[in-house]
Amino acid sequence: MKLNLKLSFSSLAFLFSINMSLAQSDADVIFVNELHKLALKEGKSYDWLKELCSKAGPRIAGSKEYEKAVEISLAQLKSITNVKTSIQDVQVDYWKRGSSEIVKLFSSNGEVIPLVSLSLGNSISTDSFGITGEVIEVQNFTELEKLGDKVKNKIVFFNRPMDPGSITTFSAYGGAVDQRVFGASKAAALGAIGVVVRSMTTEIDDFAHTGVMQYDPKYNKIPALAISTQSAELLSSEIKNKGAFLYFKNHSEMIGKMNSPNVIGEILGSENPEKVILVGGHLDAWDVAQGAHDDGSGCVQSMDVLYLLQKMGYKPKNTIRCVLFSSEENGLHGGKAYAERAIKDKESHIFSLESDSGGFTPRGFTFDADTSVLKKYFKNVNDHFLPILEGLGYKVSIGGSGADIGPLKPLKGLLAGLKPDSQRYFDFHHTKRDTIDAVHPRELKLGAAAMASLVYLIDKFGIE
Amino acid sequence: MKLNLKLSFSSLAFLFSINMSLAQSDADVIFVNELHKLALKEGKSYDWLKELCSKAGPRIAGSKEYEKAVEISLAQLKSITNVKTSIQDVQVDYWKRGSSEIVKLFSSNGEVIPLVSLSLGNSISTDSFGITGEVIEVQNFTELEKLGDKVKNKIVFFNRPMDPGSITTFSAYGGAVDQRVFGASKAAALGAIGVVVRSMTTEIDDFAHTGVMQYDPKYNKIPALAISTQSAELLSSEIKNKGAFLYFKNHSEMIGKMNSPNVIGEILGSENPEKVILVGGHLDAWDVAQGAHDDGSGCVQSMDVLYLLQKMGYKPKNTIRCVLFSSEENGLHGGKAYAERAIKDKESHIFSLESDSGGFTPRGFTFDADTSVLKKYFKNVNDHFLPILEGLGYKVSIGGSGADIGPLKPLKGLLAGLKPDSQRYFDFHHTKRDTIDAVHPRELKLGAAAMASLVYLIDKFGIE
Repeated sequence: MKLNLKLSFSSLAFLFSINMSLAQSDADVIFVNELHKLALKEGKSYDWLKELCSKAGPRIAGSKEYEKAVEISLAQLKSITNVKTSIQDVQVDYWKRGSSEIVKLFSSNGEVIPLVSLSLGNSISTDSFGITGEVIEVQNFTELEKLGDKVKNKIVFFNRPMDPGSITTFSAYGGAVDQRVFGASKAAALGAIGVVVRSMTTEIDDFAHTGVMQYDPKYNKIPALAISTQSAELLSSEIKNKGAFLYFKNHSEMIGKMNSPNVIGEILGSENPEKVILVGGHLDAWDVAQGAHDDGSGCVQSMDVLYLLQKMGYKPKNTIRCVLFSSEENGLHGGKAYAERAIKDKESHIFSLESDSGGFTPRGFTFDADTSVLKKYFKNVNDHFLPILEGLGYKVSIGGSGADIGPLKPLKGLLAGLKPDSQRYFDFHHTKRDTIDAVHPRELKLGAAAMASLVYLIDKFGIE
Repeated sequence: MKLNLKLSFSSLAFLFSINMSLAQSDADVIFVNELHKLALKEGKSYDWLKELCSKAGPRIAGSKEYEKAVEISLAQLKSITNVKTSIQDVQVDYWKRGSSEIVKLFSSNGEVIPLVSLSLGNSISTDSFGITGEVIEVQNFTELEKLGDKVKNKIVFFNRPMDPGSITTFSAYGGAVDQRVFGASKAAALGAIGVVVRSMTTEIDDFAHTGVMQYDPKYNKIPALAISTQSAELLSSEIKNKGAFLYFKNHSEMIGKMNSPNVIGEILGSENPEKVILVGGHLDAWDVAQGAHDDGSGCVQSMDVLYLLQKMGYKPKNTIRCVLFSSEENGLHGGKAYAERAIKDKESHIFSLESDSGGFTPRGFTFDADTSVLKKYFKNVNDHFLPILEGLGYKVSIGGSGADIGPLKPLKGLLAGLKPDSQRYFDFHHTKRDTIDAVHPRELKLGAAAMASLVYLIDKFGIE
């Protein structure tokens, strides 16, 4: 068996200093390398993602499309030897986009220019006539609040870009997304009649990015739409020039509570069946595209972890459970319901790993837990896993894990998130471009291999 | 100044153990972080690449398009403050593709099926009637040689795929490319009349990949073409079924020696102007596409190193020289001519860094040198640079550097190659798909930032 390992200097240094027998380590290095080869050659994630994207497509929680996604992924899980499947009922808030969404800019020279737009998730509708108003541009809430009475009866335009200088695009997203989530109520508090928000992307292009927004019950609900970054640049220059008026009309409906279940598949542990190692992603996706990266990728990679370990002939000591969560995009109902049951049943979740950052080349993992718990893990991770993961080019650091597994924190298990390369993610995120064509088979499969490797190492070495 | 550094456990460990003052290290961490932000926000590489791709386009060494590329890149270099430009004449072999390239498969059921093909670089033409012959499929030269006399008057089909299980695609390429380079003469030695070679890609698609081939002067020259992997799969199944005949016709011409210069731009060192730190890529590209990844990316990133360091206000101690090499694809004439002059002039090249693996997210660097030299560098790299580079997620390992700077090895300087993510490279390599659309602006710019960071660290700390 030929190994083609390029170990970094630091990995070499660690390999020489760790407290495990070299033979043991060698066997694990070989195992995870073979696992990567297997994933690239025979991994199921890409084929499964193609099926999910083409047959279920856009699948907001509560929709018929989500039901189809449940059916497809259950069948995919059942195709894996020794996997036991189940579903967990989850009550979600079903928000449904209407057919009519229009934003028009009345420019200073009398032109009427359509802007590229999408209603934000949970936004109310305008009435059938739509609304027209003068537009005020702001970069942040402080600026907005300073305007005070001037906001009354206006349309507020939140135009702070994601910072293009951030090395990871998720930091840039974190620094801008408050406008999308809270902008409407902040503006309504001052008497605004509607808001438009610059789309969450580092690129200047003509795609609108939807995403969740929340109303503060203290204030009037006003409609909220995202506009493409090109539309935002145009609108901003018109405002700076001679001011601008917008007309917009949108239609959507909050249908209300629906059952939209979590999907579960597991391989029972041979030694500690009561101890769970969880891998997961979320099965719901925004209603505008196939949700290939967000988060079809995380779902198929999580299922592939079961497939790959089984195909490698590995018998896990602990139960390896794949959970495909419902309604991450719009309320986190799936993650909350799962954790509620696990906490009530006092289930032991020793480790949970989520993939929800796109199906791009894996770069590493971030670990999260209570500080005391993390210290313990840190020592063990350092001893056993790190040199092997680093040998494969994966970086291990402390950081967030995933929205769906966050509610499991009270169980004191270790939480982690797969960190793929983030550069292209916000080209696709929450837009109609998030389709199977945007996912590279090798990149997706390597993510599944990275996850399966970490699950293998933690299952084998334990974390206590 | 807010730093958003995620240090890995190993980096932390190294940071605590290294022999430099923490203040010193902090300043360098801040510098390279600011350099990355600058590259993402104001770096020139993407705009320069757009200009090169649209105005020069396909630019095989010796062509008018190459002349245009020289003109464009000289102007781009001249736009950087304090950069002195020059050109170095290089004699190259100008091979020119003709207009007519056809491969047709006569299937067992009487169909005539066109295959997707491209002549390999340096291939001779068929005569105007083309050739027809029975096809023999082989996976490697051993299999070919065992066939002996059976090869006579046949067309040999080399069909060994790049190994899809390789984690880096370059290893898979290295394991298959002998068929393309040496296949024709190996087959001619046994009396074959032509060869077709499976395209060098891990994907199954319908694009033919050209690339250099070499004739062994001991044998007849026979024509050689690449066919797409889909065509290869089809041809292979026909052969396995009832055997297959191919007709093919191609036209190309070896025009012969032309002057096709290297392009050079440099910032003189403030302390040691006679010591050179080289950054480079190759300006020529195959004649079928814009050469956006191969290697327009490496050229604009190398120029951007000068731009970014200057824009950061950094005054290099040593001369930082950007070299855009001629004719890497077809004979390495640019790299050889450059090294010949440098060796003759006894120029001191303390460090040379090439980018020729595509404009994808940078993952690290591989270092190359004589073993004794490398040991010395290893110690210093370890002390000074590694924690800072690793903090940014870059992996440093021992490996190849780049074809163009390889001939500089006798000068005993340190050589290195930028290692970007390799997963998508062979979707584009040497095909008509290698266009500006295949390059992501942020990925390209991060590569320039990675190179500039390493050049900064080596210039500042030295490597002796």
